[in-house]
Amino acid sequence: MAYNIAVDAMGGDNAPHEIIKGTAMALRENDELNVILIGDEEQIKAELDKEGLDKEVPIIHTDEWIGMDESPKQALTEKKNASIALASQLLKSGEADALVSAGNTGATVLAAAQNIPIIEGIERTALAAIYPTAKFNPESHGIALMLDVGATLRCTSKQLVHFAYMGSFYVSHVLQFDKPRVALLNNGEEPNKGGEILVKTHQELKEAEDINFIGNVEGKDILKGVAEVIVTEGFVGNIVLKLIEGAADVLRATGRYAFKKKFTWKLGLALLSSGVKRFKSKTDYTEYGGAPLLGFQKLAIKAHGRSNAKAIYNAIKVAQRSIEVKVCDHISDSIQNFNAKHRIDFIDI
Amino acid sequence: MAYNIAVDAMGGDNAPHEIIKGTAMALRENDELNVILIGDEEQIKAELDKEGLDKEVPIIHTDEWIGMDESPKQALTEKKNASIALASQLLKSGEADALVSAGNTGATVLAAAQNIPIIEGIERTALAAIYPTAKFNPESHGIALMLDVGATLRCTSKQLVHFAYMGSFYVSHVLQFDKPRVALLNNGEEPNKGGEILVKTHQELKEAEDINFIGNVEGKDILKGVAEVIVTEGFVGNIVLKLIEGAADVLRATGRYAFKKKFTWKLGLALLSSGVKRFKSKTDYTEYGGAPLLGFQKLAIKAHGRSNAKAIYNAIKVAQRSIEVKVCDHISDSIQNFNAKHRIDFIDI
Repeated sequence: MAYNIAVDAMGGDNAPHEIIKGTAMALRENDELNVILIGDEEQIKAELDKEGLDKEVPIIHTDEWIGMDESPKQALTEKKNASIALASQLLKSGEADALVSAGNTGATVLAAAQNIPIIEGIERTALAAIYPTAKFNPESHGIALMLDVGATLRCTSKQLVHFAYMGSFYVSHVLQFDKPRVALLNNGEEPNKGGEILVKTHQELKEAEDINFIGNVEGKDILKGVAEVIVTEGFVGNIVLKLIEGAADVLRATGRYAFKKKFTWKLGLALLSSGVKRFKSKTDYTEYGGAPLLGFQKLAIKAHGRSNAKAIYNAIKVAQRSIEVKVCDHISDSIQNFNAKHRIDFIDI
Repeated sequence: MAYNIAVDAMGGDNAPHEIIKGTAMALRENDELNVILIGDEEQIKAELDKEGLDKEVPIIHTDEWIGMDESPKQALTEKKNASIALASQLLKSGEADALVSAGNTGATVLAAAQNIPIIEGIERTALAAIYPTAKFNPESHGIALMLDVGATLRCTSKQLVHFAYMGSFYVSHVLQFDKPRVALLNNGEEPNKGGEILVKTHQELKEAEDINFIGNVEGKDILKGVAEVIVTEGFVGNIVLKLIEGAADVLRATGRYAFKKKFTWKLGLALLSSGVKRFKSKTDYTEYGGAPLLGFQKLAIKAHGRSNAKAIYNAIKVAQRSIEVKVCDHISDSIQNFNAKHRIDFIDI
């Protein structure tokens, strides 16, 4: 089986160096893996030369790419040949079966939406973020998938149920966690919480086949590792994800301040550093490849903007597994099945 | 000027002991303060005796109160004489001008909604939570007010603008921060973000008089102290607030684990403890009295369930200041003024 993966060589803070390095790591490991690199040919070739691979890597040249801080819509309109646009076109044409980019998140979502066909029966796609959780017990995986985090701001019940299927199948098939626990983010645990849309979503998820629905969870549970899949609308997911990132920033800044401020604090932090390292290594979420874009017939993976070679290597491995286990086909089957059984359940009459 | 404040003596994890103790602290300090205690007379008298106040404190006896984990709606229906219900009736009858409770949050919100008249022109009330923020620069106050956090799950633009007024006036008049910065929580900083309701809210806030609107802020900014008032719908505010509480739980649990696990970590944490204490004292948000319920003609303050005497003392002081500065009247004036100027702006034609 051949795995054809399009990699945006120009996306991310460390492009193209770390992107090519990570790609080379993956290519060395698997003869059946084919990566198509999209970006500036000269830069890519220079990086590839350093790697000394014994296999020819196809390059699609472009001199346009989208910076991390550019406005996604405007940039995609002005740069028709942006690397992320050309990369997602390869999924449309069939030349590639999955895509990896560490570039501008909005541009990745929009380029995918413009080019990759959507699974039949799915109304809205979702960007699913992997984030670290507490690991208070041995069964906990130390990570969870939250969707949506920004592709679909407001959702209907049907869309949220679809997200639950998409997230659950991604986690069980690609990340290979057995029977992932799926939870609905809400303002209370009771089934009647959250207003009409969430009450209906809860009801439908409770009855849904093939989903290990554990019920509503609250904000306080998000970091506690109580579920592997957290379902919410894009607006809320976006605020939550960025709040977690912001909290980590504040902690780091506080640590830096304390380190400089007082010798005893500096010593205290130094003594704790092995613990912090162990804590971080327990929750190395780059090993899960980044944020998948779900609902498309082919998988796009948005790796973190700060991705290093190892993170890119992991994203390519995850993309490869997604092809191997045919995750998009499984999602498609489950959605068709669900929709067929619920043809009248989401009509408000 | 006399300050008549109803205090729910039975609400909170440490009731009635810490409630009475905090009440006594406030009473000793101010001769013009009158507190009416609502709860079990025998228990209250026993606690009051310990305090040895030289002033008679009126007690309204009831043998019903609502536990922290009871379902608010059901409990209020079944317990017609619950202490929080009787307390809020005193605001309706005019016997008290403000209320303090450390009890069940939902029951406090509902009892207020059942009894305290709403300011004319306000459609929905808000529960406004005070939470600690980073204090990266000397101007920062180290706290912010977020509203709504659960009284009104979904909001229209008009309701969100009202929340901005309510929050801004509360912070400027009661907490006495000069020109509080007001921000709209959104999934991006650009004015066109967040969908129809938030785009319109942003536009109206930009033009609003008497509000120091700094624009949209994102999830990453919530803990960074970039604004003193953060406006959002109740569903999002509830998730955000509980996520912050959950993150603090996870940090504490991780610290406890590390303390037990390894001697060097224990030592490291011990060396840092003065820093943690200083960090905590910088952000002692109990000194701001707790979460005000805004939009009513009189102020109810929901102190934290874990409130000790000092927190109750602070909540009573804040309630007293709210009466002194007539904050509800100021909110009322600004809302009437705003509504009069925008009679047709929120009609979707």
